Amino acid sequence: MPIAYLTRRERFSAAHRLYKPEFSDEENFRLFGQCSHPNWHGHNYELFVTVKGEINQDLGYVVNLKLVSQVIRDRVISKLDHKNVNIDVDFMRGMLATTENLAIAIWKELEQPLLEVGAQLHRVKIKETENNFVEYYGE
Amino acid sequence: MPIAYLTRRERFSAAHRLYKPEFSDEENFRLFGQCSHPNWHGHNYELFVTVKGEINQDLGYVVNLKLVSQVIRDRVISKLDHKNVNIDVDFMRGMLATTENLAIAIWKELEQPLLEVGAQLHRVKIKETENNFVEYYGE
Amino acid sequence: MPIAYLTRRERFSAAHRLYKPEFSDEENFRLFGQCSHPNWHGHNYELFVTVKGEINQDLGYVVNLKLVSQVIRDRVISKLDHKNVNIDVDFMRGMLATTENLAIAIWKELEQPLLEVGAQLHRVKIKETENNFVEYYGE
Amino acid sequence: MPIAYLTRRERFSAAHRLYKPEFSDEENFRLFGQCSHPNWHGHNYELFVTVKGEINQDLGYVVNLKLVSQVIRDRVISKLDHKNVNIDVDFMRGMLATTENLAIAIWKELEQPLLEVGAQLHRVKIKETENNFVEYYGE
Amino acid sequence: MPIAYLTRRERFSAAHRLYKPEFSDEENFRLFGQCSHPNWHGHNYELFVTVKGEINQDLGYVVNLKLVSQVIRDRVISKLDHKNVNIDVDFMRGMLATTENLAIAIWKELEQPLLEVGAQLHRVKIKETENNFVEYYGE
Amino acid sequence: MPIAYLTRRERFSAAHRLYKPEFSDEENFRLFGQCSHPNWHGHNYELFVTVKGEINQDLGYVVNLKLVSQVIRDRVISKLDHKNVNIDVDFMRGMLATTENLAIAIWKELEQPLLEVGAQLHRVKIKETENNFVEYYGE
Repeated sequence: MPIAYLTRRERFSAAHRLYKPEFSDEENFRLFGQCSHPNWHGHNYELFVTVKGEINQDLGYVVNLKLVSQVIRDRVISKLDHKNVNIDVDFMRGMLATTENLAIAIWKELEQPLLEVGAQLHRVKIKETENNFVEYYGE
Repeated sequence: MPIAYLTRRERFSAAHRLYKPEFSDEENFRLFGQCSHPNWHGHNYELFVTVKGEINQDLGYVVNLKLVSQVIRDRVISKLDHKNVNIDVDFMRGMLATTENLAIAIWKELEQPLLEVGAQLHRVKIKETENNFVEYYGE
Repeated sequence: MPIAYLTRRERFSAAHRLYKPEFSDEENFRLFGQCSHPNWHGHNYELFVTVKGEINQDLGYVVNLKLVSQVIRDRVISKLDHKNVNIDVDFMRGMLATTENLAIAIWKELEQPLLEVGAQLHRVKIKETENNFVEYYGE
Repeated sequence: MPIAYLTRRERFSAAHRLYKPEFSDEENFRLFGQCSHPNWHGHNYELFVTVKGEINQDLGYVVNLKLVSQVIRDRVISKLDHKNVNIDVDFMRGMLATTENLAIAIWKELEQPLLEVGAQLHRVKIKETENNFVEYYGE
Repeated sequence: MPIAYLTRRERFSAAHRLYKPEFSDEENFRLFGQCSHPNWHGHNYELFVTVKGEINQDLGYVVNLKLVSQVIRDRVISKLDHKNVNIDVDFMRGMLATTENLAIAIWKELEQPLLEVGAQLHRVKIKETENNFVEYYGE
Repeated sequence: MPIAYLTRRERFSAAHRLYKPEFSDEENFRLFGQCSHPNWHGHNYELFVTVKGEINQDLGYVVNLKLVSQVIRDRVISKLDHKNVNIDVDFMRGMLATTENLAIAIWKELEQPLLEVGAQLHRVKIKETENNFVEYYGE
């Protein structure tokens, strides 16, 4: 059976801040630049979730895209959209709110629930701005 | 002399919250939806500034675009990028952090300084997400 | 009170065909090109609805964007998305399924319901492909 | 010799419907959602064809991009653009008109003709909407 | 009869340089910045041509878009695409190769030929980069 | 430690020409099409640089994105933006100004300096137009 990769984009608008509480503002600025600004800033994040699988010969698709979208929205978007990544998001607790950590945490949130709808997670990609994005393949 | 319209896009990533402190969380949610979330959220805003003018016959342009860009960055972007619209921005003090109010406030910030570099402000457009934008013509 | 313009984008994917039943296939092809293909074709249409109004001093916005979006989805998107413009859409009955006619028909569908949520319709813009769009201002 | 990947985008606007004729409308809706709508719907599809190869030291490119584009247009776009995927397209006969099947069928159409112009097919990617795309690597 | 605005996008990739031969390199740099670089630079320009007109009740459109596109390509794109704006383009002879001058010159090239296919020119918009564009309305 | 891929986009506008001086104009046109036009043409190039690495547990990122951006701008963008690829760019000397060669040359320019800021280069992608891009992985 041929193998295809299916990607779904979902979006969320969130606030965040990059900093380590044990460091001074100056040290945080040196490490994280403007992203360490104390009163938060935010982004329109784009999340691209790619699943991989054999094409079901009977139905012609890897998996019902509606189910994939529903899992992403239930597990991830509902917790991130119009929220503060540092404060509000259970699966980001205790982690620096970087795009890298976000990608890993979203992978962990999605891997099992996607399997339950028949989709094997292949890649999580997060676009923070039109100039920056991070990809994570579960390695 | 022919008249042309010149538009410069600049971007800023900022946090904000829509709410009225005198209202309950429920009332704020009814009026402002998810945007009233207490712990802030944020956007990658796109700002499009349009100036209008006769084309300088000698130089072939309405105004030196570098100067327009510099004014926008000095007066607006430097105050908004990686900031909190509600807390950090002097020209938004005392105003609800809506896109409409932001457009008007940015118009006020830019109108005179743009005139000083020879550019007459025509329109301020702010794109908050790929699905929403506001335009203000100074009326 | 300052006046602002607020635009909401909504999307729909639909099939259509441009042809006049009283004409031959050749004549239809001459008038409408590939768009006259008998077995239909389709597009990812983008609909931009712009409303105009004074900014409510108390709430800082022209109108609650959620309400605008809801009206557009109830009146227009629900009837067009994943449908056939020629066959399925009540407000397009008896009309050629051109982008121009679609823009006028959508204006008629939206004008009154938008007024009822406090929004005065200013422009309907429909982007058919990345290379073509139509704007209608109710004139 | 260094190896590079060259991608060409071509576009087509087509109608389609996802359904299995042996199933009821209800069953088709359960499996394919709105895409099973009987009167068709459509999309502006974007097709990204990636070829892979050593860079010709003499000419500085993997392959003449014009030839790649010509092959894609002759073999694929001319058959899909302004057409109905279910009815009009010879290489989709007997297959469900899913994006996955389309990607595989396009791979089969392009692999040999691209080889004949010196280009080894690496990936077929089809973007159905701004939120969904499928990739196929010939596996 | 309702009036609609129809816009067609066409693209061209061209080289140009902004400078006045009677000025020194330093003076040209002061006036035109990096765009005065002597060995040329270039852009992927996007040209948006908007025509305005009553909707033909019989055919449901303002004008046959194919004709509009053909006029733009014959009169403008064929002369600009993969060319040097300063050297190769007859309708830019003797003018500074600014986006403003380009917009005016394209207006003059298109106005009459568009009338001959039944389309009244309303606006010429040229996007030079993702951050800059110029609009000209024939005033 | 988990491994992530971080991509930074930077842009440059440049002129170029594809041709071999030892060939006739006709032969160059046959090999390179319109890109062989003698008086140059140009593009708004988009450069996507992807680095790969373990996520620093302490700082939550692969590498400080500011440093990556600074390296790209110092080593590549400053030499290409508003320049002529054939004439002005030291690291393209003696090479055909194809996108493939540009990708390889940029890889060579960036590999070592990126290592010095702690980033391992994974991919260089150059988008020449909205329809064409090249990727190089250092193989």
